[in-house]
Amino acid sequence: MDAIRLERPIETKRPKIDLIKVAGNSRTSAVAGAIAGVIRDTNQAVVQAIGASAVNQAAKAMALAKGYLSEDGISVVCIPEFVDVEIDGKVRTAMKFVVEPR
Amino acid sequence: MDAIRLERPIETKRPKIDLIKVAGNSRTSAVAGAIAGVIRDTNQAVVQAIGASAVNQAAKAMALAKGYLSEDGISVVCIPEFVDVEIDGKVRTAMKFVVEPR
Repeated sequence: MDAIRLERPIETKRPKIDLIKVAGNSRTSAVAGAIAGVIRDTNQAVVQAIGASAVNQAAKAMALAKGYLSEDGISVVCIPEFVDVEIDGKVRTAMKFVVEPR
Repeated sequence: MDAIRLERPIETKRPKIDLIKVAGNSRTSAVAGAIAGVIRDTNQAVVQAIGASAVNQAAKAMALAKGYLSEDGISVVCIPEFVDVEIDGKVRTAMKFVVEPR
């Protein structure tokens, strides 16, 4: 699970929510499992991806997590937004997806 | 707007909803405008993308459309899912995003 890091987000207004960082080489099923687990635990997951490949992996993982959670009777939606993040001193625009029960 | 095609979907159970097909070279703002317009008209938009680049454009467009619609007091969410589509006789897995007011 090298490609998935769970960290406290620096910019969030909800400090108790873990941030699921997705990379282009993240395994879809591992990310989906992380999303489903965090939602079961905290009722909300925040997924962050930078770049087309990572955003694609995030989208696939959210679709998969939606399937996992629907088996538990949890119907989730996602809310996409832009967020600026600083990486190695450079500001980059990431996509952030808040995933939560509808 | 060559890269955006509005077509009747073949697989949908909601035949009155137009399908917004996003390509990797679709302009984000044009797609976002289409999403916002369709939601204002019909209360729901369905966005379809195949491939990482197209999915990334779709995600960015949905984030942008969310901003446009929030100015009208409409708060939208998206629901990602996988869908098989046939293109040139070959079945490919697309990402479909249902965008609707929460």
